[in-house]
Amino acid sequence: MSELKNDLFLKALRGEQVQRPPVWMMRQAGRYLPEYLKLKAKYDFFTRCETPELACEITLQPIDIIGPDAAIIFSDILVIPQALGVKVLMEEGRGPLLPDTISTQADIDKLQVEGAAERLDYVCKAISLCKQELNGRVPLIGFAGAPFTILCYMVEGKGSKTFDKAKQFCFTEPALAAQLLQKITTATIEYLKAQVKAGADCVQIFDSWSGMLAPADFDAYSLPYLKQISDALISMCPVILFPKGSWYALQQLSETSCSGIGIDWTVPAIYAREQTPGKTLQGNFDPAKLLTDPQTITKEVNKMIDAFGVHRYIANLGHGILPNVPVDNAKAFVDAVKNYPN
Amino acid sequence: MSELKNDLFLKALRGEQVQRPPVWMMRQAGRYLPEYLKLKAKYDFFTRCETPELACEITLQPIDIIGPDAAIIFSDILVIPQALGVKVLMEEGRGPLLPDTISTQADIDKLQVEGAAERLDYVCKAISLCKQELNGRVPLIGFAGAPFTILCYMVEGKGSKTFDKAKQFCFTEPALAAQLLQKITTATIEYLKAQVKAGADCVQIFDSWSGMLAPADFDAYSLPYLKQISDALISMCPVILFPKGSWYALQQLSETSCSGIGIDWTVPAIYAREQTPGKTLQGNFDPAKLLTDPQTITKEVNKMIDAFGVHRYIANLGHGILPNVPVDNAKAFVDAVKNYPN
Repeated sequence: MSELKNDLFLKALRGEQVQRPPVWMMRQAGRYLPEYLKLKAKYDFFTRCETPELACEITLQPIDIIGPDAAIIFSDILVIPQALGVKVLMEEGRGPLLPDTISTQADIDKLQVEGAAERLDYVCKAISLCKQELNGRVPLIGFAGAPFTILCYMVEGKGSKTFDKAKQFCFTEPALAAQLLQKITTATIEYLKAQVKAGADCVQIFDSWSGMLAPADFDAYSLPYLKQISDALISMCPVILFPKGSWYALQQLSETSCSGIGIDWTVPAIYAREQTPGKTLQGNFDPAKLLTDPQTITKEVNKMIDAFGVHRYIANLGHGILPNVPVDNAKAFVDAVKNYPN
Repeated sequence: MSELKNDLFLKALRGEQVQRPPVWMMRQAGRYLPEYLKLKAKYDFFTRCETPELACEITLQPIDIIGPDAAIIFSDILVIPQALGVKVLMEEGRGPLLPDTISTQADIDKLQVEGAAERLDYVCKAISLCKQELNGRVPLIGFAGAPFTILCYMVEGKGSKTFDKAKQFCFTEPALAAQLLQKITTATIEYLKAQVKAGADCVQIFDSWSGMLAPADFDAYSLPYLKQISDALISMCPVILFPKGSWYALQQLSETSCSGIGIDWTVPAIYAREQTPGKTLQGNFDPAKLLTDPQTITKEVNKMIDAFGVHRYIANLGHGILPNVPVDNAKAFVDAVKNYPN
């Protein structure tokens, strides 16, 4: 494996001194890039994910076109339910659909934790290929969905504004919810370990829906599983936890073994810093701000870095990049960080 | 006008001593009640809103069936765009649709602020009728959408998970956004004053989408207009501001003239109290918890009141009641507050 030529991202996670913060964008390999849309027109979603050459090509597109300081493997958080034996359909433009929702003990008993990571070997193959193709240009991030977010989809069966059915399941069947969360967690840990063995330099856990939970419910249904995953991976590589919307849990997250914590754009830098001593923060540009213009973006990026400071900070969006962002604006975001403090 | 037999709600807003907190539920007049569904099957949405006898009947249904300490007039926040001259369509089960979205100076110039409140006279007629029918049983709350939330619908044209188009408009056309927000604010103030003159004992401002804004953008596009409305109404009646999701702005909200501040279920009581000295807090039960059972609800309500305390507190949900809540569970919520601290 080639030595990393740009290890700014890993330095920031280790708390080392840097000249400027590293930068990448959540969903940087995706729908705002015309080069991606060409592949999307030719291959369906699962073909793109499951063909290492395609996943690798998509992962590298933003590295060549936009130039961030880290790559993130192109995949989806819903490969875990799939590997557990649950059918996942992806209809373009309509979001995911899991027709066989989980609601009973029998549903949970049927889930196949054993061999789940092996069934996701195509992700590891894509990671190995990417590491080779990257040739040390930037580090490669592996990822998985957090157990609570995966439970949301497995119980609700589709996306939702509020995931009431998933929450109702947790609140009325807490013992079943714990079993389901534990099965997801166990499979996720094996899956992430395999990603690291295949070459991932860091892993990020996306808890996209944890912000739907009240603090006490976050403590019950999200935090213990994030902790397990972080504890299991941290000796192998840096771990970033991103429980979107769970501003109220930052202090608790700072007491876990993780290296970095992702925050969305509602969290003021001063509050986030107070709550998370000793951790690296990642975020938190409002994705909708990338719909403005390069000058505005540059000005706002400078303000953001001024607020967070250069050290223990990874510049990123507060959520995934929107599909209708002009490529020049995405590039302006990355360039503004690279040129800081100009 | 009859004297109020139950003024617990107003006492809590004035900061007076009470034996237990008052309780009501956002959207308490609505889809979880079979009696409402019968009227919904017979009359379309705007007929229900615009016919004072129907709006009054719907407003009073939860008072008779569930027994909260306040009524809230049955209406919709989108009557304001309608009164400004914008077409609003309500398709059952599909959410609102505003086909003529606002994007230019000409669009804003066309909005008719003058006479807007008069065009909503049917709401005031419904309020007067309700006050008469309530006969002093409980106070009646009037309401309006906050200017930023109304802008969201007027620019986006429909509901959205993230309101990116509305935010893009604000970020790229801040001067136009300010004009639009000011027109909405001016009309809303006249409308709310008319509601109070018609008999509303309190007004609440729903900023359902302010939580989509970063703190600095909340300061630009939401807060100044909430302030204007509060300042204009506060000499007439108590004012409750509910900027859902804007946990980061609680301290600023506590510096406005308002009487009460609504909070969603992600906000810990201890944090909310620290941030809002001298204000009454309203909330913040997770609406999804009403999908459990009466015993669980009672236990959770007791915990909530223990955390907020009895004084300067109005027990409520953290957002509107969900359509699939069993009536017995809604009643358990209200009863648990009434029986506190049993």
